[in-house]
Amino acid sequence: MHKVNIKNLLGTKFPIIQAPMAGVQDSTLTIAVSEAGGLGSLPCAMLSIEKIVSEIQEIKAATDKPYNLNFFCHKAAAYDAEKQLNWQKILKPYFKELGIEFDPLARGANRVPFNHDIADAIEPFKPALISFHFGLPDKTLIQRIKSWGTKIISSATTVEEAIWLESKGADGIIAQGLEAGGHRGMFLSNDISTQMGLFALLPQIIQRVNIPVIAAGGISDKQGVQAALLLGANAVQIGTAYLLCLEAQTSALHRAAISSAQSAHTALTTLFSGKPARGIVNRVMRELGYINPLAPDFPYAAIEMTQLRNHAEKLGVNDFSPLWCGQNTLDCQTISARELTLQLAGINEKI
Amino acid sequence: MHKVNIKNLLGTKFPIIQAPMAGVQDSTLTIAVSEAGGLGSLPCAMLSIEKIVSEIQEIKAATDKPYNLNFFCHKAAAYDAEKQLNWQKILKPYFKELGIEFDPLARGANRVPFNHDIADAIEPFKPALISFHFGLPDKTLIQRIKSWGTKIISSATTVEEAIWLESKGADGIIAQGLEAGGHRGMFLSNDISTQMGLFALLPQIIQRVNIPVIAAGGISDKQGVQAALLLGANAVQIGTAYLLCLEAQTSALHRAAISSAQSAHTALTTLFSGKPARGIVNRVMRELGYINPLAPDFPYAAIEMTQLRNHAEKLGVNDFSPLWCGQNTLDCQTISARELTLQLAGINEKI
Repeated sequence: MHKVNIKNLLGTKFPIIQAPMAGVQDSTLTIAVSEAGGLGSLPCAMLSIEKIVSEIQEIKAATDKPYNLNFFCHKAAAYDAEKQLNWQKILKPYFKELGIEFDPLARGANRVPFNHDIADAIEPFKPALISFHFGLPDKTLIQRIKSWGTKIISSATTVEEAIWLESKGADGIIAQGLEAGGHRGMFLSNDISTQMGLFALLPQIIQRVNIPVIAAGGISDKQGVQAALLLGANAVQIGTAYLLCLEAQTSALHRAAISSAQSAHTALTTLFSGKPARGIVNRVMRELGYINPLAPDFPYAAIEMTQLRNHAEKLGVNDFSPLWCGQNTLDCQTISARELTLQLAGINEKI
Repeated sequence: MHKVNIKNLLGTKFPIIQAPMAGVQDSTLTIAVSEAGGLGSLPCAMLSIEKIVSEIQEIKAATDKPYNLNFFCHKAAAYDAEKQLNWQKILKPYFKELGIEFDPLARGANRVPFNHDIADAIEPFKPALISFHFGLPDKTLIQRIKSWGTKIISSATTVEEAIWLESKGADGIIAQGLEAGGHRGMFLSNDISTQMGLFALLPQIIQRVNIPVIAAGGISDKQGVQAALLLGANAVQIGTAYLLCLEAQTSALHRAAISSAQSAHTALTTLFSGKPARGIVNRVMRELGYINPLAPDFPYAAIEMTQLRNHAEKLGVNDFSPLWCGQNTLDCQTISARELTLQLAGINEKI
């Protein structure tokens, strides 16, 4: 039924993708997962072109196994000075409390959608796989990527998005259940009530598309992997379980929140970037509302919050930090990514 | 590890509970499911005591198989005349549009929490199992029920609720993933962001309680049942898949919505009862907002809406109907409940 074989699509020993997690990992995690037999991912959305190239070089120097490059492909909204000023007013009491001045020259919103400059830089590597978040780039970019022999996958959060992705040329669909941490891949609607639990989303997407489907959201252990495959997924993508891994760059503050009772309550919030993303509920989320319609569009909401965050984190306070995390932290362990990948695959290395 | 054996708890051939669905079923569905080898449920929350008794008599006359009685056990809020008047103002344009007058004597909110009068009426039947929604009744009622030898189960929508239910004497937990249709069983929080997808909720509840766990939400077929069991559930509870069954009393309007593209988008809404429940998005949900803080407390929000609904439905319009439905309608089929139950159990009767 599926046109593309999942083994050909991923090229890995195990049907397990480590979810790209911008801000908490670099190529170190990618390499460890790929070497273990999963598909390591490199989140490129917040990296400069030079950094993307050097990270790919790191990966290729360390492993000959397949890897995944992840990019954002949002439609960049225009900067709205009025909305931004209003948001700054709302955040002003926090700046006052922390005793810092808002830096009007600060950017902090460096999330550039995939473009031809990036394509120029990665073309020499002819990557086997690229995953996108927030839909797909335009037709010329898709054609250009495909001309390298590169396969493309992207996240769907509704059946409608899965059908759209297939129609635009995706080679695989990541069915992103709302259990998942970090940014929702949603791109056809802003209404978070459209978001579905994996048990509902996965079978409905599988029934409606003819390309491989990768299950994501809430999967944290071997049983979860097997349950997703039993529901018809061709592979799984797992993020949260990797957050405490030795090779992840998750901050001490973020690790502490994941390991604490605070992680029992995550919520989708627009406060940190302007797009809904799942993180552990913290002070600013409680005080300003998880989904605040006054937050500037993606990625501009990040500008001021990043300044608050940077200062507060130095004080050991996570009040303004995007504590990205899925709904299931049961199997977050401070172990090597190799050990976790083998656990997920059901392999007991010690035997 | 689990103290109570699931076979003893349910007493059925298959580990499948048909979810009680007030308003769209009576004992006919209960009997059909129980006779097929699942556990049929009778939703009693909206029935008079006389009707509860006559329905139990119907069940016992038709089958000697186990059945489940379901009751609500919400803390009844006080009627707030001011809030209600304000809500009537908000709904007034709809009454005007339909050309009807609001009936100030109307009740339409007949959802009485479980009490000693109900216990008096059902005690002679010594039911094997009772399921509750919205927590558990008070200690004396729990002790009274248990003195009959009756087992008690209830829904948890968070890990915290599961631990609470076990501590108060529940014999089993229904882990209600947010994919599920109808009312959320939530009782320790009103914040719908606390609600989790089944893939995340189920393993975390299993890890934290020592009683059987029943998985609910988004399960619609044999693979779904098996996946939930693989994740560690002792049984499953399934509602939405039964909505189109021949023995269900789901209205033609409701059936049409389930079978149409409209059912691709369900949302949690407080408009129809005052408590969050998942239904297919319709006009009044779009226009007043799914979760409207001005809606009166449960169950008083139902009073006026029921009048609008009753009138509109006569015109063939579902604008004001609570179209309860889960996020997965993939396997809703107009077949007998027997056939569906056997499908879910993986039994092909034709062989």
